[in-house]
Amino acid sequence: MPKKITILHGAGGSESQELIKEVILGRFSYKKFDVPLDALDDASVVNGIVFKTDSHAVYPLFFPGGDIGRLAVCGTVNDISMVGGKPLALSLAIVMEEGLDYSVLEKVLDSVKIACDEADVKIVTGDTKVVEHGGVKEMILNTSGIGIRSPYLDHNFEIVEKFRNINTRWLLDSNLQPGDKIILSGYIGDHGIAVMSARRQYGLSSDIVSDVQPLNHMVEKVLKVGGIVAMKDPTRGGLSNLLYEWCEKSGVGIEIEESKIPLREGVKAACEILGISPLEIGNEGKAVLAVVPEMAEKVLSTLRETKEGAYSQIIGEAVSGHDKVVMKTIVGGRRIVPRPRGDPIPRIC
Amino acid sequence: MPKKITILHGAGGSESQELIKEVILGRFSYKKFDVPLDALDDASVVNGIVFKTDSHAVYPLFFPGGDIGRLAVCGTVNDISMVGGKPLALSLAIVMEEGLDYSVLEKVLDSVKIACDEADVKIVTGDTKVVEHGGVKEMILNTSGIGIRSPYLDHNFEIVEKFRNINTRWLLDSNLQPGDKIILSGYIGDHGIAVMSARRQYGLSSDIVSDVQPLNHMVEKVLKVGGIVAMKDPTRGGLSNLLYEWCEKSGVGIEIEESKIPLREGVKAACEILGISPLEIGNEGKAVLAVVPEMAEKVLSTLRETKEGAYSQIIGEAVSGHDKVVMKTIVGGRRIVPRPRGDPIPRIC
Repeated sequence: MPKKITILHGAGGSESQELIKEVILGRFSYKKFDVPLDALDDASVVNGIVFKTDSHAVYPLFFPGGDIGRLAVCGTVNDISMVGGKPLALSLAIVMEEGLDYSVLEKVLDSVKIACDEADVKIVTGDTKVVEHGGVKEMILNTSGIGIRSPYLDHNFEIVEKFRNINTRWLLDSNLQPGDKIILSGYIGDHGIAVMSARRQYGLSSDIVSDVQPLNHMVEKVLKVGGIVAMKDPTRGGLSNLLYEWCEKSGVGIEIEESKIPLREGVKAACEILGISPLEIGNEGKAVLAVVPEMAEKVLSTLRETKEGAYSQIIGEAVSGHDKVVMKTIVGGRRIVPRPRGDPIPRIC
Repeated sequence: MPKKITILHGAGGSESQELIKEVILGRFSYKKFDVPLDALDDASVVNGIVFKTDSHAVYPLFFPGGDIGRLAVCGTVNDISMVGGKPLALSLAIVMEEGLDYSVLEKVLDSVKIACDEADVKIVTGDTKVVEHGGVKEMILNTSGIGIRSPYLDHNFEIVEKFRNINTRWLLDSNLQPGDKIILSGYIGDHGIAVMSARRQYGLSSDIVSDVQPLNHMVEKVLKVGGIVAMKDPTRGGLSNLLYEWCEKSGVGIEIEESKIPLREGVKAACEILGISPLEIGNEGKAVLAVVPEMAEKVLSTLRETKEGAYSQIIGEAVSGHDKVVMKTIVGGRRIVPRPRGDPIPRIC
């Protein structure tokens, strides 16, 4: 029986990682760039240009709080921001199914436009393909993006170096050291549950709206404060996958407190009905920051002054002695958070 | 009855142009960049960075002379080259159908790797999504690419300026003047017919193989010669669509000679069976160059010394007095070449 591609291969967890390491890095490993593909970080940096791609196949196209157009712009803007880039321009490649209502395309493009304006980026190049009915389900978008180094990134690292050495000038998954504080910029799980409820598959209805939003302005504000060593958005595979990527690439463990993780009642209830963990659900408007402990409170208060990060919390810290994500539960126990194999809700981005 | 998207909206001809002008430029017009989206040229230039995106939905994935992987790399490399960029790095975003054989993915990635090596570009960022069975047909790829200004582009324009004024430093569709010679770098129609024969739909079988190849090395060689004002690859909509884009954007007419256009017997025969024009079929390894007349022979002989351009021909010239593409036929008449509404063979790229 030949080996087949499964949904888990695209769901951002350990199965995706295995596929990527096996079939992609085996062929395209090339470590000479500032931030190479091999880093498997949020974006790459080539000749000083921050570069990132994302395809979006969210189903349905429209969901509470957003749609595929807004998602595509925010996803790429955020990934460029997460390594310390200032997003500059995006490409937009559309693959549509024959017979799609013209008005659906127009509605999606309106969302693209609004999200670009919010993020202050421009669509500068594009491609349009139409395939026969059934060739895709409605529409797939790809946004790639280019950015330059944030003008505040050097300042950020100067602050880091007041407290400890660091041997890179980009915000990388491999930069954590024991003691670094972990800050989450707000509620988790909203995006996945919003998309899920739009499907009406499980009789699930909720008033949860997606968090999909550009984070570049918020990121700029905290870089001006300084002291951040790593930043990442908890998309596919959610918060727990993100923290495991940090553990693995930085060689640390991470301890978090359940009581500190912002979680809406509606998300909690939906997760209980679906039997899934909110820590594994993809988000589209949140960042997780690793910060030198001396600057954590200052970064936190700056985040809380922003619209995007108003509900930020210090949720834990990096530790030595183990390589797992460990959670102190609300009832007082300690448990190892499992590494997700993939996102429990498919096709949310 | 609401307006619907049709196959022609993605086929690169006048219908695509209308869609793009109406729904894209209406929203995303922004003329401040070196080569903006509004130019609707092969690639854009932003802060000195050449940037381009392409999604590929060719069906079937494998065809004589290439596959979707090779196509994706060459398409983006060539578009960056066509404005005078030196391609540097590509992104690769894969959307796959659940159940796809793992070996199909591996075969496509091998082709990506080989084409990248040929073109001397690197895959530096990527994305992998899996959708349910039927969500896409097998696989869609997006490659976006970044490039820098070719180191030979200034020299090229210095040579142009020996003979006439030109007010841009990029190779643009709007740069032609009456008298410029039109050079085609080889046989046309091969790619479309190769893909078509792989479908076995029309009982069409031929020994034609796709021309899909990276053109950046060939382009570099002719920029060293100099005198080129515009360059474009005749992909969707073929040679005739390309020439009409030049006419429209440069405000010229173009006269070509049918006897000069390299056309294989097998392509000619297939076109007769299918009732389509070889001038409208998409190519993936050819370039059309507009050159100041004084340099045309030198550019031609340099092209002919390359593997990619061995069968280059001067096929005509830009003229004043009308705004059409006019062809002197082999039998001696003159006819207006119609502007294609789209590519007559869908889903070849």
